[in-house]
Amino acid sequence: MLSFPDRLEAAIGRCGNPVLVGLDPRFELLPEGVAPSGGVAEPSSMARACGDFCRGVIDVVAPLVPAVKPQAAFFEQLGPPGMAVLAEVIRYAGERGLLVILDGKRNDIGSTAVAYARGLLGSQGQSPWGADALTVSPYLGADSLKPFVDVAVERAAGIFVLVKTSNPGGGMFQDLLSDGRPLYRHVGAHVEQLAAETLGACGYGAIGAVVGATYPGQLAQLRGEMPHAWFLVPGFGSQGGTAEDVAAAFDDRGLGAIIINSRGIIFAHGRAPYSQRFGPSQWQRAVEAATVEMIERLRAETPAGKLG
Amino acid sequence: MLSFPDRLEAAIGRCGNPVLVGLDPRFELLPEGVAPSGGVAEPSSMARACGDFCRGVIDVVAPLVPAVKPQAAFFEQLGPPGMAVLAEVIRYAGERGLLVILDGKRNDIGSTAVAYARGLLGSQGQSPWGADALTVSPYLGADSLKPFVDVAVERAAGIFVLVKTSNPGGGMFQDLLSDGRPLYRHVGAHVEQLAAETLGACGYGAIGAVVGATYPGQLAQLRGEMPHAWFLVPGFGSQGGTAEDVAAAFDDRGLGAIIINSRGIIFAHGRAPYSQRFGPSQWQRAVEAATVEMIERLRAETPAGKLG
Repeated sequence: MLSFPDRLEAAIGRCGNPVLVGLDPRFELLPEGVAPSGGVAEPSSMARACGDFCRGVIDVVAPLVPAVKPQAAFFEQLGPPGMAVLAEVIRYAGERGLLVILDGKRNDIGSTAVAYARGLLGSQGQSPWGADALTVSPYLGADSLKPFVDVAVERAAGIFVLVKTSNPGGGMFQDLLSDGRPLYRHVGAHVEQLAAETLGACGYGAIGAVVGATYPGQLAQLRGEMPHAWFLVPGFGSQGGTAEDVAAAFDDRGLGAIIINSRGIIFAHGRAPYSQRFGPSQWQRAVEAATVEMIERLRAETPAGKLG
Repeated sequence: MLSFPDRLEAAIGRCGNPVLVGLDPRFELLPEGVAPSGGVAEPSSMARACGDFCRGVIDVVAPLVPAVKPQAAFFEQLGPPGMAVLAEVIRYAGERGLLVILDGKRNDIGSTAVAYARGLLGSQGQSPWGADALTVSPYLGADSLKPFVDVAVERAAGIFVLVKTSNPGGGMFQDLLSDGRPLYRHVGAHVEQLAAETLGACGYGAIGAVVGATYPGQLAQLRGEMPHAWFLVPGFGSQGGTAEDVAAAFDDRGLGAIIINSRGIIFAHGRAPYSQRFGPSQWQRAVEAATVEMIERLRAETPAGKLG
């Protein structure tokens, strides 16, 4: 199997865009007709509805975008039935040709990190969850990241390490200066080294970075300092990041970044202009319209326009 | 219901010791007779064996110690059946009077952090998983911790934020100096503030800290700087930490810290002197002996000897 960075490049090239649709099945926001009607829902019926919803989103976006990002928290919130649905959703997305980047922000030390890595990464035959890539937190240091790197390389999977997050309070620790550089640049330097050690033919490594769209200047600086790391970019859309803000995440070929949109796409039926254009039962048409709009905006206003 | 810090104090007082038994059901280390025999095990039968094993450990330790710590990674590694077993194990431990601190090292931003907190924390009636407390990673900053704090306070639960971890590479980022203080002390100062804002009658807060036993000098310093935070202390036993190393984690009353032992207790049947004293079918007697030995050592060599 091709390495993860090369599979990501191929999927982006095939679709001609770098949009990553976030699957955040918030039960309270599910469209009419998908959520069970009336009364208090049981975790298992809530989980089933969230699974139906995610499959409905996947059906729409699979021909349009290279990858989806299930957010583990919204499945875990529903207890064991939610986790069973997470595995089904990952499998369903993979069968439809989408790369699956599981957003779990996991990490731990030593053999515990190995357990997460082996459990979550790799194809369904290699691991029970079968994600192509996983987000990972760096606080525990290089030896906590190494098991994820090793398993990723062995199984043609990838990881994305949190470097500079998109939330307002992200800077509290990430911006602390040490030796004249903020913490996130120290983390970024290590991730760049791991990326350079795991290069695919595309010029990017199996180890990438999460870098938010809400700090465009820092995003541009990190792009310069981390030439071999794929960037997973949150913060576009509902968090305020624009196409202009994410433009610096790309290289000259329009590669190097995938841009996340979760609520802005999957719950488009609930916001203008889509809520006016589509009735509640047409929520999948709203998903499609919002996806196409984001693709067009990125192609018009960023180097992603150079993609095939 | 009493607040989490007061429930923890009461459980420690009742047992007369601060031992936290880590439930790390590594399938390959399960005792004979617990693991399914012969051939390649399916995830569901592996998960069932891990559940049987954890229940067997809980039966032994419930009368002896205040709390257990299931490690999410070892359940997650087994896929959805493993997660179903995790929920069963948490319930089983709670029914036997044990506090359950789920080691998940979770975190995310905004409403995603809310989903983790609501899903994992609180009694079984309040959340599908039903943990009394959860370990949380700090890299994303104060606004990512706040949802966990809010849910913990609302549901009489607790959180333990990673401050100074026990792994050899933990210092890579945690020891970076900023304004003359290492990152972990910046994190510690914030956790102390959260602890002081969530005080129980016992003088400790609902927000505690993970501080490793493998750096005794830093543990002592943090104890002085964080007088209101319960310390969850990994690194004892198999990672090299001794009773002497953890002594500084306690206050004058013998409170303020819970000391983790996972492999050293639950897989005692596989190591000397227990492997000589007990046959493979007597693994629960090895668990009991190792637990009692740790209790006696902490009572003899640390301020925990002052507990009732």
